[in-house]
Amino acid sequence: MNFYSFEPNLFKELVSFNANFIPNNMAKGLVKKEENYSQWYNEIVIKADLAENSAVRGCMVIKPYGFSIWEKMQSVLDGMFKETGHQNAYFQLFIPKSFFSKEANHVEGFAKECAVVTHYRLKNCENGGIEVDESAKLEEELIVRPTSETIIWNTYKNWINSYRDLPLLVNQWANVVRWEMRTRLFLRTAEFLWQEGHTAHATKEEAIAETKQMIEVYAKFAQEYLGVPVIIGTKTENERFAGAEETYCIEALMQDGKALQAGTSHFLAQNFAKAFDVKFLNKDNKEEYVWATSWGVSTRLMGALVMAHSDNNGLVIPPKLAPIQVVIVPIYKNEEQLADITERVDKLCQSLKGKGISYKFDNRDSQRPGFKFAEWELKGVPVRIAIGPKDYENNTWEVARRDTLSKEIISNDDILNHIETLLVDIKDNIYQKALNFRAENTHRVDTWDEFKDIIENKPGFIEAHWDGTSETEEKIKAETKATIRLIPIDPEHEEGKCVYSGKPSKHRVLFAKAY
Amino acid sequence: MNFYSFEPNLFKELVSFNANFIPNNMAKGLVKKEENYSQWYNEIVIKADLAENSAVRGCMVIKPYGFSIWEKMQSVLDGMFKETGHQNAYFQLFIPKSFFSKEANHVEGFAKECAVVTHYRLKNCENGGIEVDESAKLEEELIVRPTSETIIWNTYKNWINSYRDLPLLVNQWANVVRWEMRTRLFLRTAEFLWQEGHTAHATKEEAIAETKQMIEVYAKFAQEYLGVPVIIGTKTENERFAGAEETYCIEALMQDGKALQAGTSHFLAQNFAKAFDVKFLNKDNKEEYVWATSWGVSTRLMGALVMAHSDNNGLVIPPKLAPIQVVIVPIYKNEEQLADITERVDKLCQSLKGKGISYKFDNRDSQRPGFKFAEWELKGVPVRIAIGPKDYENNTWEVARRDTLSKEIISNDDILNHIETLLVDIKDNIYQKALNFRAENTHRVDTWDEFKDIIENKPGFIEAHWDGTSETEEKIKAETKATIRLIPIDPEHEEGKCVYSGKPSKHRVLFAKAY
Repeated sequence: MNFYSFEPNLFKELVSFNANFIPNNMAKGLVKKEENYSQWYNEIVIKADLAENSAVRGCMVIKPYGFSIWEKMQSVLDGMFKETGHQNAYFQLFIPKSFFSKEANHVEGFAKECAVVTHYRLKNCENGGIEVDESAKLEEELIVRPTSETIIWNTYKNWINSYRDLPLLVNQWANVVRWEMRTRLFLRTAEFLWQEGHTAHATKEEAIAETKQMIEVYAKFAQEYLGVPVIIGTKTENERFAGAEETYCIEALMQDGKALQAGTSHFLAQNFAKAFDVKFLNKDNKEEYVWATSWGVSTRLMGALVMAHSDNNGLVIPPKLAPIQVVIVPIYKNEEQLADITERVDKLCQSLKGKGISYKFDNRDSQRPGFKFAEWELKGVPVRIAIGPKDYENNTWEVARRDTLSKEIISNDDILNHIETLLVDIKDNIYQKALNFRAENTHRVDTWDEFKDIIENKPGFIEAHWDGTSETEEKIKAETKATIRLIPIDPEHEEGKCVYSGKPSKHRVLFAKAY
Repeated sequence: MNFYSFEPNLFKELVSFNANFIPNNMAKGLVKKEENYSQWYNEIVIKADLAENSAVRGCMVIKPYGFSIWEKMQSVLDGMFKETGHQNAYFQLFIPKSFFSKEANHVEGFAKECAVVTHYRLKNCENGGIEVDESAKLEEELIVRPTSETIIWNTYKNWINSYRDLPLLVNQWANVVRWEMRTRLFLRTAEFLWQEGHTAHATKEEAIAETKQMIEVYAKFAQEYLGVPVIIGTKTENERFAGAEETYCIEALMQDGKALQAGTSHFLAQNFAKAFDVKFLNKDNKEEYVWATSWGVSTRLMGALVMAHSDNNGLVIPPKLAPIQVVIVPIYKNEEQLADITERVDKLCQSLKGKGISYKFDNRDSQRPGFKFAEWELKGVPVRIAIGPKDYENNTWEVARRDTLSKEIISNDDILNHIETLLVDIKDNIYQKALNFRAENTHRVDTWDEFKDIIENKPGFIEAHWDGTSETEEKIKAETKATIRLIPIDPEHEEGKCVYSGKPSKHRVLFAKAY
């Protein structure tokens, strides 16, 4: 009997939240990432109880364990937004169809694969089911927001009159829907959760400064909390947000060597202000159009977290985002031993609480320690502590770190300091590991043959010269599936020739295959 | 020129977020609540920058100031849910139409005024606009969730196998849509924000205990944070949640004497487990259906907050939910005076920060103090402090409390303690005021003539005997618009006769006109 096949009934047991039916060696059930990266990713998301596919095609259910990681991301990001002067608000879910047509580029980019609401009532039908009431047809169809620029700028029109109303620094946490045909949990789903900042400014300079500030906030979050090194740059015209004059992005390298865009910040110039007629009176009492930005990150960051750090034993969660930072597993043969151990564990838990370190004492008697070890490894808890009768006698603990899977025996006197240090070490180590991986997998390429060879046979980023035309960009994409991930900010000046066309170029750009 | 008319252009200025164009005496612009309660409510919501109607009929935009109050509510409630063992998760926005038909009562209650998604693509049309792509019609229509029992129980089917998987204690913060025809900001809108708890239990007793626990959590929140006294009870069969066996509710009395249901908690028995075939293996290894609860509060609580405490000067926010608890307004004639005052204010702000009290130093030079006083009154800030040259010399502050509008001169030595005490006083006072109002407006009624007289001419609750039949309940509603708000928990036994039918009754129930 194969426990790891995806037969519906077994699978049902494997993903149950309390995980009581998962066999001890469940982690071995993961496909190795070297063998099938895509399946490995999917299995981690499912088996570590992060998310699953919903009954509605392309949508996902974010399970409590996964959601608690997302909540931590939200909390950190929300704090960073507020520190930089932003306030939250909420705008409606639906967009009147006509709004889309107002900004010419935006409509091209977004008014395509959308969920369209056409009716507002159901009625009982004769067979006992229900059917759409055709008499309740909307005069104008409503689109479930794929992004909210149009509704927000239509609203800002009423909020902005004078330079005194500016800047307007607003963010919203919301769900959005883009009817993607090929979906993958967290990376690309029809509905996803995100935040979208929408700001309005009196000057171009201020709006550009805001755009840059927010991409730097994202970069800081990615590096310090997600433990994912990112490169900041701007998108080419082809890859730019529909309606933006400039799109800043952060790009990260996943373990399979593909790039993942982890956040974007758009300078929208006066495009939406013009489309929705949003003007203000400047200090000289003259009317001007307002300058805009928008910026967002989404539950896609959960995908980045999984793909950047996890291994063949399962998830590896960066300590600052871990719902449980320390799990404690007792090893005992009888109730008396458990009572002794529990007393010592309780003291440690009190100390951890005092330090603001989250912990779980896994004293379930229904599972053996080996099972618990595998389960918490799969779920990516940064530090695992075991204590058995011998440790109790010796006044020690066995401490295992998730990132390296190494173990140490630590005396009770040192345990608290050790854990604190370890959490920082793990955070630093997983970041450094990802940084090294990126360094090892970034290729400076000067010929088209080399480009084609590397993009086909090696993972990672390619730094190459490009002639700056969309035509070349599209041809490269058509031939290799590689896209320009970004144009570096303040790129190093270097006279060179476009790797494809041979035309002159003054600096390199970053290519990769991407999610 | 009348500044307070609702001509579009002036109105636009009146609601701008920074409120720089609102004339000094703007609060006088509020309709008196005694004259037109409904308009008074609407004007407070709009002018205090809480929310406004969106471009989509029946939906609302929650503005930053309003949203910051809702965020505080969320944060407190979320903490209470977690303390009682619940975890957050996220389930998809869309419900396949067929899911509704699975629970017979639920379909009657919810599958009516819903937003229906029928297509998933738009295309460009010849006139330059966009149109629905008829070739992208969904095989099965999707309903935008009006509540999530059906999708969640369809999901729980895969999460629950054994008694070890229970209880499952999950909450979700989400937007929902009910296509209401007559809407009012916060009280009844097509889209609103809420939380919905959905729990699964092994026994009936445990599910009932959960249902009761959560209505008590809501009652505690309403009383301690919203400052709104509530009565806990159960709904009659007519008023019950569609699909529930028992609905617990909290009912509050608004200042116009109408009742507002502020939260509900439903014991769903095994109805959804049976509809979605969710069984578990009990300790004796036998299959049983799972027992369920669901419970929710929504942005309607914002409406309760406004209607319970506000006065003709504007909003009154309970201190624990106030985004700004203390506002400080400097009064000065020249830069030198402002510099002196600012120095002292900065010290006070540091002390407030140390105490975790939120504050704002309103040093805008574009507005006079009188304007600022009126603005912060309108926006309901609990404590307002003014400091002028004379206060500076005398080492004093002028402290005004929003609930009573009274002022005191307080010495600098006492100011911090005074503010702390005042915030508690205000909290207690607004609760007590609401409690007194309810006591004065609760009528014990024994005859039908008296009932009709009171329901027509006096605000408030009526305690009366009822024969326990839906027939009588419906007749009373048809004749007076009064509904049974709740059946008290453990009602005082009292032999009596139904106020309408004269049939025997053993206890009173609570009637009122309601929102």
